[in-house]
Amino acid sequence: MTALATERVSPGIGLVQRRYATWLEPLALDSGASLAPVTLAYETYGELNAARDNAVLLLHALSGDAHVAGRYSLTDARPGWWDDMVGPGRPFDTDRYFIICANVIGGCKGSTGPSSTNPVTGKPYGLSFPVITIGDMVRAQVRLIDRLEINRLLAVVGGSMGGFQALEWATAYPERVHGAILLATSARSSAQTVAWNAIGRRAIMSDPRWRGGDYYEHEPPVDGLATARMIGHITYLSEPALERKFGRAFQAGGGPAFTLAQEFAIESYLEYQGASFNARFDANSYLYITKAMDYWDLPARHGSLETAFARSQARFLVLSYSSDWLYPTSESRLIASALHRVGRPVAHLEIASTAGHDAFLVDIEQQSPIIEEFLARLAEENG
Amino acid sequence: MTALATERVSPGIGLVQRRYATWLEPLALDSGASLAPVTLAYETYGELNAARDNAVLLLHALSGDAHVAGRYSLTDARPGWWDDMVGPGRPFDTDRYFIICANVIGGCKGSTGPSSTNPVTGKPYGLSFPVITIGDMVRAQVRLIDRLEINRLLAVVGGSMGGFQALEWATAYPERVHGAILLATSARSSAQTVAWNAIGRRAIMSDPRWRGGDYYEHEPPVDGLATARMIGHITYLSEPALERKFGRAFQAGGGPAFTLAQEFAIESYLEYQGASFNARFDANSYLYITKAMDYWDLPARHGSLETAFARSQARFLVLSYSSDWLYPTSESRLIASALHRVGRPVAHLEIASTAGHDAFLVDIEQQSPIIEEFLARLAEENG
Repeated sequence: MTALATERVSPGIGLVQRRYATWLEPLALDSGASLAPVTLAYETYGELNAARDNAVLLLHALSGDAHVAGRYSLTDARPGWWDDMVGPGRPFDTDRYFIICANVIGGCKGSTGPSSTNPVTGKPYGLSFPVITIGDMVRAQVRLIDRLEINRLLAVVGGSMGGFQALEWATAYPERVHGAILLATSARSSAQTVAWNAIGRRAIMSDPRWRGGDYYEHEPPVDGLATARMIGHITYLSEPALERKFGRAFQAGGGPAFTLAQEFAIESYLEYQGASFNARFDANSYLYITKAMDYWDLPARHGSLETAFARSQARFLVLSYSSDWLYPTSESRLIASALHRVGRPVAHLEIASTAGHDAFLVDIEQQSPIIEEFLARLAEENG
Repeated sequence: MTALATERVSPGIGLVQRRYATWLEPLALDSGASLAPVTLAYETYGELNAARDNAVLLLHALSGDAHVAGRYSLTDARPGWWDDMVGPGRPFDTDRYFIICANVIGGCKGSTGPSSTNPVTGKPYGLSFPVITIGDMVRAQVRLIDRLEINRLLAVVGGSMGGFQALEWATAYPERVHGAILLATSARSSAQTVAWNAIGRRAIMSDPRWRGGDYYEHEPPVDGLATARMIGHITYLSEPALERKFGRAFQAGGGPAFTLAQEFAIESYLEYQGASFNARFDANSYLYITKAMDYWDLPARHGSLETAFARSQARFLVLSYSSDWLYPTSESRLIASALHRVGRPVAHLEIASTAGHDAFLVDIEQQSPIIEEFLARLAEENG
């Protein structure tokens, strides 16, 4: 009992530092435009081995950032977004692997994005930031992996939009990826995910405080971003999870107050989600990143999913989650089938979870040993 | 061939008229407040028989109104919202039944709602309109059925929020309902439907043009209402239907334009839905009606669903639709099981459809003969 309790409060990765890498050479973008300078904010955990073949690149989702694990200071309220998964003895075992995560370009957590200074004007880019794609995000990450002098990544790993990037790595840079772990993701954005993103963007852009994206010296479009986040949040959760967590409870207890004001517990929860997202995220970044997601269509770019995977040299682990209705198991099955058809090694598992799309972040018990074993096998193959 | 073609262009119900009934006596509301005067806009099709026992009350959903079938003039672009279902030889056969539909109170299509004149101020109610419930909507309808001198309705029929009202009729006025047809509905609003409605309301109320509901002399909150409608619209459609109808097509054809502006076909469609909804719906009505939906909780009000149904004297037909994820079959099953447990006659059928929640409105082929037969049986029981 005591041992278990101690294990549970183990400090994990402990204190970590955010790092920065900057390139002055322009980064060519899919749109034909280019971006310079380019900074990536990133974090690393564990040590790169002498053979430089134990590096695992974690790729974050829409609202994520480079801060996967640990705390910046002892007084930090919360650790990184996948802290349970990263650390000594954890699935991404920092005693064995060198873990890397970088904030995507277009983001707002240290990497170059619409809130960064446009060198031409000396002011924040706003909408003068170029429209980017998942391919562009990965092209910037390649620079970082080059700078870290890593030839081949032991694994690229991502959930949701992180999975898009992992797929891009495995197909566009086949010789540099030994294994790919895809969680709750898809080879292309569906019409429905495009629709949700489009409604969120419209909510932001119709907030008068958005000011055509030029709000950095004013109050930001908090209502629009809150609406976008609330929509997203409901799509990340399953109906049963919402029912169990909130049901029809009134925030103040008791019955209806017969008011148009917020009174259900689920409303307060959404309000909290909106406000806390506003405190940590830039509305323009939300526009650019969701647009990059909407463009994501791997089969269209290669003619077919099979063609996309034909050159890949990676071993794939595809995990989907039974109650995820945003990136349902059927999407993972399309990936796994295509890989199978072109003879790539792939395992697809559906994990039973009521946590919806967020399962890969919050319901880690079942995925952990599967990921551990997959990574161990990759490391073994390295010899 | 000719006969079939003629049948297809049969004029259905033909020209119809909107009628109004007004009561000066205050209507007592669930909140404790009261409403006076109360006007209901309604339409009727077919003839009430001598026994006055062939009346079918149709109950509309969130964005519906009294105009179920036919056209007001020969130049009307579109007929009523369930035109295919109502008319000579159609499931709600106007040669046999007297069909009634009234706009709900709180609405904006002729019945008393927040855009009506508050008799105290001489100005539109706005937020001085009282918060209403499904029970209040039905209480007003009872007045109309009384005025039409109908003791017992052959059937109450409703999809979605219309089903809420049908359930309310069958449980609160058991002696006045012979049969109830519930389509794509639920005995209570789920946490997820409350969440979608709450996000829509928040979008409206955070549109600066909303002005605390007092916008009737100004431009209305078109952006907020458009956002609310777009959210609703996606929840009414199934993912496969969206994929088939729009997929990832770009409005202008070709590939990405690398812009934050709308460019996917699904975006143009949503924009159109938002604009056309703004042209026909009042934002405050959207607030009041969605709030009434959120309060809907039949089992909570009666202690259990079984208790709610114990006094009912109706025969029930419960239809759900396989791709409806907003009011899924599981919700209909809860209704049917509870009815079964208290010995009420009930048939529950799940109809295979890819049309999502909207199936009961647009995919009528399978439901039509089932409804026809159910009504015929009720009429037979009348002798």
